[in-house]
Amino acid sequence: MFAVTILGNNSAIPTPDRHPTSQVITYNDQLILVDCGEGTQMQLQRYKIKRGRIRHIFISHLHGDHYFGLIGLINSMSLLGRIEPLSVYGPPELEEILQIQLHVAATTLNFELNFHPLLPGQTGVVLKEKEMEVSFFPTRHRIPCYGFSFSLQRRKRRIIPEQARIYEIPAAFYSKLQEGADYERKDGKVVKNDWVTLPPPRAKRYVYCADSIYDEDLVPHMKEADIVYHETTYLHDLSQRAADRFHSTTVQAATLAKMAGAHRLLIGHFSSKYTELQPFLDETRPVFPETELAIEGVTYLI
Amino acid sequence: MFAVTILGNNSAIPTPDRHPTSQVITYNDQLILVDCGEGTQMQLQRYKIKRGRIRHIFISHLHGDHYFGLIGLINSMSLLGRIEPLSVYGPPELEEILQIQLHVAATTLNFELNFHPLLPGQTGVVLKEKEMEVSFFPTRHRIPCYGFSFSLQRRKRRIIPEQARIYEIPAAFYSKLQEGADYERKDGKVVKNDWVTLPPPRAKRYVYCADSIYDEDLVPHMKEADIVYHETTYLHDLSQRAADRFHSTTVQAATLAKMAGAHRLLIGHFSSKYTELQPFLDETRPVFPETELAIEGVTYLI
Repeated sequence: MFAVTILGNNSAIPTPDRHPTSQVITYNDQLILVDCGEGTQMQLQRYKIKRGRIRHIFISHLHGDHYFGLIGLINSMSLLGRIEPLSVYGPPELEEILQIQLHVAATTLNFELNFHPLLPGQTGVVLKEKEMEVSFFPTRHRIPCYGFSFSLQRRKRRIIPEQARIYEIPAAFYSKLQEGADYERKDGKVVKNDWVTLPPPRAKRYVYCADSIYDEDLVPHMKEADIVYHETTYLHDLSQRAADRFHSTTVQAATLAKMAGAHRLLIGHFSSKYTELQPFLDETRPVFPETELAIEGVTYLI
Repeated sequence: MFAVTILGNNSAIPTPDRHPTSQVITYNDQLILVDCGEGTQMQLQRYKIKRGRIRHIFISHLHGDHYFGLIGLINSMSLLGRIEPLSVYGPPELEEILQIQLHVAATTLNFELNFHPLLPGQTGVVLKEKEMEVSFFPTRHRIPCYGFSFSLQRRKRRIIPEQARIYEIPAAFYSKLQEGADYERKDGKVVKNDWVTLPPPRAKRYVYCADSIYDEDLVPHMKEADIVYHETTYLHDLSQRAADRFHSTTVQAATLAKMAGAHRLLIGHFSSKYTELQPFLDETRPVFPETELAIEGVTYLI
């Protein structure tokens, strides 16, 4: 399973029903948190998502609606007895903000907090594990801001059953074939792995574009992603306001998704001024039909 | 009207239904916020309390469950166009925590943020306005922590109608009498104000004791208060745990309220381990019958 669950889809001003930005990515049994607005820890509880299973937290930028909930979440993790290390990735000033708040409370965390500063000159891969690879890239916002690309690596080669039968490879050896092994027959002949398998399917990819003004430089990062998340703070009649505030509109997000050949587009970060969200779909789908609204509590399979 | 509304009654770990500490004091048309845990701004909206009418915010100490919601509230006030100055009273490090978070977001508030550091050597009156006087005092907690006493000044002298009639003072002059004026009769004789009035009734007083271990030094501050708020993080069987963590139990809070001759006791800051709150009343009332549970969304008249 590779999926993203929306915890908050609102822009700057939270309400009891619409929360500031936060998303959880699930892959196999792991969780990654992406942004952490105020109240994220309550949203995790509301949707029965276990805080303890989060190992990595990515913070796109230091506007409050993307990180004010982080210190509270970290604090609660410690109070709840967490001992597993936690990695936080974000702009370098975030570390100082966290440390000063721990310091004044005389709090010593029960667990190791590993902070990974995101620096403009170092965009690229920031996390590489067996299954997950995460890279970051700059977006254009009022303050330094980063998007993230989450790739679920798929390492098993695909067996071509007809070929495997021709070479009389027993089914018991198939899992070794998937890992790339050659097969040695009883008669001593060697069947090369690539005679009977194809390379692994491409990695599935979720691209989170954080907050940004309309910026075609994002397109290469979004290229053919399974899902792209792009903010649509405003409907398109407010494109001037969007530009003034370094935000985007429906039509702009859809245009980029189309240029990138993305498979699907998820839109969110809706301005608090809108009570109805349907118009966001109505404006986006004519440009890019495979668009979905980011709805709190809903999980989107990638 | 002089009243306190509970926004959060829980201790450290928030849940979607029980929020960290925050209270709003209403007097006439003014609002004062006391502590501001994560999610306070959403709680204000939930209970239709206008953020814009808050002029003073008091923060007792720098454990997160008492202030993590402050930066978000201040941020939203600015986004919503507030121009009236806001005063924040709290431990001195709080100012740096707020400023660094405004700085990294490149936020310039639309309004003046006046920070008043609470310093141990300077306990006493910290705010004195026409109607409201607030003083602060230390409690005994794991880090520096302060309680606050809110006194609603009542300045009108009380007229003794029989005496006023004897001296033939016309009713039209009564409002002047209430303000302390003498009355000069047509025959030139002067009726001294205190012949016909009594001093104003005593100020009504709400005393907020924040977080504290059992501490009889609090008693003088609680003396004869109309309502004392005292934390009861634990039921009394956990008095050792309470002491270890610089918190209090039901019986301890009730004992102090009784010693102080308080009129009523409000208890809160319940540990997240308790799902039922009735046992808190059951243990407190035998010692101090005039006890109430602090329930979120409920307003208590002072």
